[in-house]
Amino acid sequence: MQQEKNAQTIRLRQVLPDQIEQESMRIIVRELKQQNITLDESVAPIVKRVIHTSADFEYAHTLHFSANAVERGIKALQQGATIVTDTNMAKAGINHKALAKLGCQVVCFMADEEVAAAAKAAGTTRAVASMEKAAKLSGPVVFAIGNAPTALVRLCQLAVQQAVSPELIIGVPVGFVNVVESKQLLASLPVPHIVAMGRKGGSNVAAAICNALLYQAGGR
Amino acid sequence: MQQEKNAQTIRLRQVLPDQIEQESMRIIVRELKQQNITLDESVAPIVKRVIHTSADFEYAHTLHFSANAVERGIKALQQGATIVTDTNMAKAGINHKALAKLGCQVVCFMADEEVAAAAKAAGTTRAVASMEKAAKLSGPVVFAIGNAPTALVRLCQLAVQQAVSPELIIGVPVGFVNVVESKQLLASLPVPHIVAMGRKGGSNVAAAICNALLYQAGGR
Repeated sequence: MQQEKNAQTIRLRQVLPDQIEQESMRIIVRELKQQNITLDESVAPIVKRVIHTSADFEYAHTLHFSANAVERGIKALQQGATIVTDTNMAKAGINHKALAKLGCQVVCFMADEEVAAAAKAAGTTRAVASMEKAAKLSGPVVFAIGNAPTALVRLCQLAVQQAVSPELIIGVPVGFVNVVESKQLLASLPVPHIVAMGRKGGSNVAAAICNALLYQAGGR
Repeated sequence: MQQEKNAQTIRLRQVLPDQIEQESMRIIVRELKQQNITLDESVAPIVKRVIHTSADFEYAHTLHFSANAVERGIKALQQGATIVTDTNMAKAGINHKALAKLGCQVVCFMADEEVAAAAKAAGTTRAVASMEKAAKLSGPVVFAIGNAPTALVRLCQLAVQQAVSPELIIGVPVGFVNVVESKQLLASLPVPHIVAMGRKGGSNVAAAICNALLYQAGGR
């Protein structure tokens, strides 16, 4: 059969599963060099992991880090921080073994019944109500917002009002309406932040940044 | 404070949450037109939803559909198909209300203990073993592979051997090693498929394609 013949002519590289990530990172480093992109050493592991998760080298240009953001994030995770996400997808993408090793946890309140009720009562959205609930968490908290600009805007407002003091805000929502603006807002604040400027981002990017920080913190 | 002043000057568009998706889709349609991209009517809802989820217009060029792939996918979901993913992240990103409305379910065997044991016993990977387990499912099955090229390659082999007869394979793994090749392999087979050619893809893209099909099938 023609299709079987075609299938047989596809050549797969013989790489053991645990070597695939190393090999991928080598390719990423090589191509960054070819594009004359030099990454600051402190942020390179995060940028490379986001490129690894997206195959999109644009992030080498769009990821912005406030001073000491990476350091603050790593330290918080070493102290057993809670990561708050705005989607269950980002939550699912964070390495749970690494979280457990560091005594960290990840929560997402978007599907929370209490949050749904609070949103309805206040005439607001679940994204907003979930941030208000998360603002009451005790201990070090890292926010990872990969989807809802409304969540990120509310979080920024709470931070300006000092109703929440996150160790780090990862602001990488994706999309076309209020997304760019919500990230500009975060980038203008003195809160430690990692932002993907522009339209791109997503739950996968939010999870990748969390994982890069977890691994640097000793989670694997 | 300067930062508060900056924050106040960021202008957010006043759009109600349920209008954000409509407004996003309008922007996507407008920009596709500006780029002189015309989408075939049958695939437009899927391409637009992938762009919506990634803010990446490259997918208008890289998404390939075999003949009747969309039709087959929709029909399978209307018959209560099981969607098999290769990550819990993709599973979490699929609209569970839409699944329930159509009597569909989504499964991911990657974290399955039985799969881990089978992989160890056979000296293979969990990605491979999870596909072998999924091949034994009864009823209509749609595969959505957004991460592991090894899973996609094994699935293609099983399909060629007629050990599995999926209604549709969504092949959108992301990355740098064997990813392009695994998608070329799928594209060469007579199995109904939707493929994101090239390096890009991901669990978010896999979930977006499933959601677009679920919505077209009447899931909302």
